[in-house]
Amino acid sequence: MEDFFELRTVKWKNGAVWMIDQTKVPERLTYMKCRTPREVAEAIRNMVVRGAPAIGVAAAMGLALAAHRSRAKTKERLLKELESAAEKLAVTRPTAVNLMWGLSKILETARGLSGDIKTVKKALIDKAIEMTDDDVQANLRIGEYGASLIADGDTVLTHCNAGALATVGYGTALAPIRTAIRQGKHVKVLADETRPRLQGARLTAFELSRDRIPVMVITDGMAGYVMAKGLVQKIIVGADRIVGDGVFNKIGTYTLAIAARYHRIPFYVAAPMSTFDPVNSSDAVKIEERSSREVTHISDVRVVPKNVEVMNPAFDFTPLSLVDAIITDKGVLNQPNRDSVLRFAKTGVM
Amino acid sequence: MEDFFELRTVKWKNGAVWMIDQTKVPERLTYMKCRTPREVAEAIRNMVVRGAPAIGVAAAMGLALAAHRSRAKTKERLLKELESAAEKLAVTRPTAVNLMWGLSKILETARGLSGDIKTVKKALIDKAIEMTDDDVQANLRIGEYGASLIADGDTVLTHCNAGALATVGYGTALAPIRTAIRQGKHVKVLADETRPRLQGARLTAFELSRDRIPVMVITDGMAGYVMAKGLVQKIIVGADRIVGDGVFNKIGTYTLAIAARYHRIPFYVAAPMSTFDPVNSSDAVKIEERSSREVTHISDVRVVPKNVEVMNPAFDFTPLSLVDAIITDKGVLNQPNRDSVLRFAKTGVM
Repeated sequence: MEDFFELRTVKWKNGAVWMIDQTKVPERLTYMKCRTPREVAEAIRNMVVRGAPAIGVAAAMGLALAAHRSRAKTKERLLKELESAAEKLAVTRPTAVNLMWGLSKILETARGLSGDIKTVKKALIDKAIEMTDDDVQANLRIGEYGASLIADGDTVLTHCNAGALATVGYGTALAPIRTAIRQGKHVKVLADETRPRLQGARLTAFELSRDRIPVMVITDGMAGYVMAKGLVQKIIVGADRIVGDGVFNKIGTYTLAIAARYHRIPFYVAAPMSTFDPVNSSDAVKIEERSSREVTHISDVRVVPKNVEVMNPAFDFTPLSLVDAIITDKGVLNQPNRDSVLRFAKTGVM
Repeated sequence: MEDFFELRTVKWKNGAVWMIDQTKVPERLTYMKCRTPREVAEAIRNMVVRGAPAIGVAAAMGLALAAHRSRAKTKERLLKELESAAEKLAVTRPTAVNLMWGLSKILETARGLSGDIKTVKKALIDKAIEMTDDDVQANLRIGEYGASLIADGDTVLTHCNAGALATVGYGTALAPIRTAIRQGKHVKVLADETRPRLQGARLTAFELSRDRIPVMVITDGMAGYVMAKGLVQKIIVGADRIVGDGVFNKIGTYTLAIAARYHRIPFYVAAPMSTFDPVNSSDAVKIEERSSREVTHISDVRVVPKNVEVMNPAFDFTPLSLVDAIITDKGVLNQPNRDSVLRFAKTGVM
């Protein structure tokens, strides 16, 4: 069990935020130190830290840094500074709702606090640290609920990285797999490489093989092939935002969900409550378009001819009709529909 | 029109076979010279030349080289040498049926010829050269038949490269697009990058942009996204082998066909008669498993951690039920089924 917690993607230590630099994994496992909210914002934008739950906590840590460094003499002044920092952190990546959630948690806490400024600042840092522990606890619960859906001998296909590296630790989509294995089930994983940024090949393969969980990498286009061959029993993916009509997740998820439905293979989404958006429906959510270089180049190798255009939406939308269950930290939403998703998003009750 | 023929992937010149080295495109457009059947076999194996129709003609050229270099004094002796060379060429890539077709054409011709040995050798070389012209003519007919399926303003999604570079010239899947444009229709192309070898990003984007046909590259996982957004009106892919129950083509084709059906977007396969296999059904066809390095590395950049397994089937199988039409050099097979495909495969009659 210790092993699972070693990979903490985001940590507070001595007045700085330390993050695993995920742009370097699997070549190197190194930590990047952020001393300012601006450095945290840059780390989120450049995907040093990525994965909806992880960037939610990282954003909260960014505000904790703002509090830590503040010279404000009054709570009102501190709150103004925090709000200004939150604005800059909020625009780094528009799709994952956890980012807004992480910022709101700290701002709400700040608004609710009284007492001398030093105490307030300390309380905000404590809150951000508490959120890292809460994240791991939520993921352990996702693991417990989700493991019941995995049978001994299953091979689970996953997309992108919704593992320890996408959270503070343990993962969302990978949590049920980890827990099922701890329960003694034999489970194998197929990991879509997940172009353009190859988080499946780089991150999911890295963290699973590190934990000695059997993993094989396939290219994204092989999904239909492995399903037709009977090599996949379940599909579990994470989420960047769950709205009343469906799920935003890494580009490629939707194509995978269609192929799963065609083969009648259960398609599950795993996410904590912080990924649910009770307000917006899908047409109000902006899908981030990232740099074309992520598609035209792999590392520094150009793979698309010069002057040829590319597209690079970072996420796509999967309607609830293709989702067999959503595994949350509060239980499993089976055959989710608008009513059940919005009820849970608003109340946290199944 | 001249432009379309410039890119001849395989040529006979002065007793040698010249091929565009497609492992170097788009960085460099260079020809590789093969002087022996063994060099041709290596070029096919290493995908210097690739694409089912192109390797069919290249294999025929390999036998023409064997004839050209032969010191046999009798036709019987020459035939033995050709059969031995054909065996070595046949095993280079097991899935595309055009390879066997190209070899059979030359062997059949050799068996049917009489006269002095010099005349026989010349006739075999002439036959191989004739096959390069026949390939382009067949593709022009595919273009004519297929163009009727493309409407003014369509965006066509394609996978891998079934263009000029996959044939001797003009292409199969890209032929209807080229012809539709020559007819004055406005047509755009979306090209799946096609991992692992990126033939879409490298080759399709290269040849279309060279011919000033609007092309945009997407990653394979974006297929569902662009369909849901209404950005695609037709899908046309090539084929490596068409059997009575479906189509073998580049890995990823099947996932694409499923997504097309889900969105009710027409899914077309374009191929000349030489791609049809009248004998085998899908379970008798071997899907080539290629080197794991094609998945673990892109150029020399490792993208999968060491000691993590990968899978690398080069092709997948799409059942006829997902294919709306097969565009051939003899006409269009609408809503193809076992009977219509096998009748055409055996008789060449629609």
